[in-house]
Amino acid sequence: MAERRARVVLDAMGGDHGPAVTVPGALAAYREHGVPVVLVGRAGEIRRWLRRYGAADGVEVRHAGEVVPMTERGGHTTSRRETSLMVGCELARREGLPFVSAGSSGAVVASAVRAFGRREGVRRPALAVALPTTSGSTVLVDAGGTTDPTAEMLAQFATLGAAYARDILGVHDPVVGLLSIGSEPGKGNRLVRDAARLLPELPVRFHGNVEGHDVLAGTVDVVVTDGFTGNIVLKNIEGCVRTVLALAARTGTADPGTLEEVARLYAADTHGGAALLGLTGTVVVAHGSSGAAAIARACVVARDLAAEEAPAPVNGHRAAGPAS
Amino acid sequence: MAERRARVVLDAMGGDHGPAVTVPGALAAYREHGVPVVLVGRAGEIRRWLRRYGAADGVEVRHAGEVVPMTERGGHTTSRRETSLMVGCELARREGLPFVSAGSSGAVVASAVRAFGRREGVRRPALAVALPTTSGSTVLVDAGGTTDPTAEMLAQFATLGAAYARDILGVHDPVVGLLSIGSEPGKGNRLVRDAARLLPELPVRFHGNVEGHDVLAGTVDVVVTDGFTGNIVLKNIEGCVRTVLALAARTGTADPGTLEEVARLYAADTHGGAALLGLTGTVVVAHGSSGAAAIARACVVARDLAAEEAPAPVNGHRAAGPAS
Repeated sequence: MAERRARVVLDAMGGDHGPAVTVPGALAAYREHGVPVVLVGRAGEIRRWLRRYGAADGVEVRHAGEVVPMTERGGHTTSRRETSLMVGCELARREGLPFVSAGSSGAVVASAVRAFGRREGVRRPALAVALPTTSGSTVLVDAGGTTDPTAEMLAQFATLGAAYARDILGVHDPVVGLLSIGSEPGKGNRLVRDAARLLPELPVRFHGNVEGHDVLAGTVDVVVTDGFTGNIVLKNIEGCVRTVLALAARTGTADPGTLEEVARLYAADTHGGAALLGLTGTVVVAHGSSGAAAIARACVVARDLAAEEAPAPVNGHRAAGPAS
Repeated sequence: MAERRARVVLDAMGGDHGPAVTVPGALAAYREHGVPVVLVGRAGEIRRWLRRYGAADGVEVRHAGEVVPMTERGGHTTSRRETSLMVGCELARREGLPFVSAGSSGAVVASAVRAFGRREGVRRPALAVALPTTSGSTVLVDAGGTTDPTAEMLAQFATLGAAYARDILGVHDPVVGLLSIGSEPGKGNRLVRDAARLLPELPVRFHGNVEGHDVLAGTVDVVVTDGFTGNIVLKNIEGCVRTVLALAARTGTADPGTLEEVARLYAADTHGGAALLGLTGTVVVAHGSSGAAAIARACVVARDLAAEEAPAPVNGHRAAGPAS
């Protein structure tokens, strides 16, 4: 029974490689990390890959006949109820399980919002990624959930990101910075200048503006930005790490093994994807180019997030009013 | 006479440290690189620093009594005609000299536009920076000139960036990419989706969308983005290089000297600042935190740019019509 509760629902058709990667990823999640997985997608295809890699008790299959292409941005995605994304999200919601997909992040966000619904008062969900710094880690939020947010949405991302840093990463009273092009108030584009007036009013410890070089410097615990800029920053870091290590290796004396260790810190296989904050369920969006190890890691992160995010019991102190 | 023509006008009051850094920077530009400099700013202060570092024939002083604070964004900056920025820009325009400032980039752009004026047809200027990749370099444009451009402006940045790659970096038929959050057309925020429809119509070799990891990968010769995102990407790279090298050094075997070499590739001291494209004169914006070496490098870049950008003689073939 304990094991059934800890299952993770995985979109088997998501990502650049579909079941060729999600099936071995699910098997690794179960065998190496003890996370049981429900694979959702075209049952025939999934079973072919399971025969190849060897089935396991802890990996179930649930059929969904349609697939959302990686090029889809969201929008009409949710009108097709038989996609692996929608069937998977609905299953996760009904059974109170975490959901993982490496599909197009726009489509994952749209499907998850439709199935789970937003938490009370949340206008748009945001993707949070914890990035390693020299002194610990920094939460980047939004890393790609909402590409054109309003200033009010950015303010909510600050609150969601601070809660994530506190509840999941265990940071006491996290410091929040707003990503801009100068540390002085008033610097930035229109969106950031508007948001900079809202953030000091929030019940979070607001540091003020931070700049591009602060993201990995440990200046703040949470870096708030729009989903367009955040996604570009996240992928820019991945590319920058690769280029720097290639240049360092080329100049000679650096030990390739050591450099690989640093590269791994920033690889999707290690951080395991982004948490979609602001919904009533747990959703992890893995990188579209994830390999099996990254999928397995995303399943582990989803299980851990679900354990942390478990809502207070309805008859507990936090739910004194009538259930809504 | 040749030496007088090659002079560079330097805003002595710009940057986080003002004349304490711009004066030794100007002296280094002249002594180490043969670039004569006109320092514009508070003559008393400048001369005090010149006494400390030792005056040189090739370094002149021109007085300007007002200083634009680093916190100023532009806007009303240009109504004060006695700032080192406006006096410097006007001097450079009158004498056909390149101009360098490490001041607030918003204020530098506003002053330069006011003094030099835009080239015919150009709506907004853009900052271009050449970033080293494993296979050469990539021009990032706009790196901070215009924070809230329209799609039409982004299309002009593509044209300006391609011309810069061709004329200054010597890239034959440069390939241009539009920075977004997915390589498929239709991915991105509203601005990028609109711009993606305009770029294929331009007389440039358009690759399509590129992502954050492509910036340093050498995927394209020119990466086009808005000045907000571009500035954050530029500074994110600086910070990422520092963090990666610190982590690599900490894990042990990498040789610190080798790592320093890579760090220098991405430091302001090496790339020497951003070229402001789209104006009738040559303007280089140095990093606000520039040291003397970075200031000297920016002066060298400005001289080289001015030599390349020299307009065709008025009685030549390109100016058949009446002078405007």
